[in-house]
Amino acid sequence: MEDKTLEMTLLFDFFGELLTEKQRECFDLYYNEDLSLAEIAENSGITRQGVRDLLVRSEHLLRETERKTGLVRRFEELQAQVLSIESDLAQLRPLCSDTQCQPLLDRIDEKLQNLKG
Amino acid sequence: MEDKTLEMTLLFDFFGELLTEKQRECFDLYYNEDLSLAEIAENSGITRQGVRDLLVRSEHLLRETERKTGLVRRFEELQAQVLSIESDLAQLRPLCSDTQCQPLLDRIDEKLQNLKG
Repeated sequence: MEDKTLEMTLLFDFFGELLTEKQRECFDLYYNEDLSLAEIAENSGITRQGVRDLLVRSEHLLRETERKTGLVRRFEELQAQVLSIESDLAQLRPLCSDTQCQPLLDRIDEKLQNLKG
Repeated sequence: MEDKTLEMTLLFDFFGELLTEKQRECFDLYYNEDLSLAEIAENSGITRQGVRDLLVRSEHLLRETERKTGLVRRFEELQAQVLSIESDLAQLRPLCSDTQCQPLLDRIDEKLQNLKG
């Protein structure tokens, strides 16, 4: 997958609901369903150029929202921190011989999984 | 602090940059600096009613952004999960007698603090 597609699907996941229904539809068909501009135009009854314009406006809005709020970046930093805690926990596990430790470690691991969800 | 003030300062922290500069200014003076409508009107050279209108529009935009994205809620759930992991870790600490355990536990605690930041 291209870098731009990755960036856009991530931004869409966070801010997609801020787009209009029409923008969201086109965006989803193009980036998630991988339809071409011509195919989307045919299905939605607008011109190929109209679809392109909708996409450009949507991309701009999503990028601007991230530029202003930084929330995707904030979530990504958080995810990196969670991965790093998981790694610490994996090192901790063999050092804890007490039988009460393992269920606690399991519980923490489970909660870390939720944090990544 | 009132519930609404709490709600609004939280929403502002997440989405404040999506407001216009004027909206942001009034919002900040009212909710963070606790100035009255009359005081803001005097300082900004718009009418008291104008300030009220700006605030109402800002509140609406912030609430709508949260209704659509659910990102504040998502962060709050995350924070609750982190607190719960901290509590598990506190239970784990006295059970780990190995000397290598404590630095690892400290490191995890520090990272959990970062997650709350």
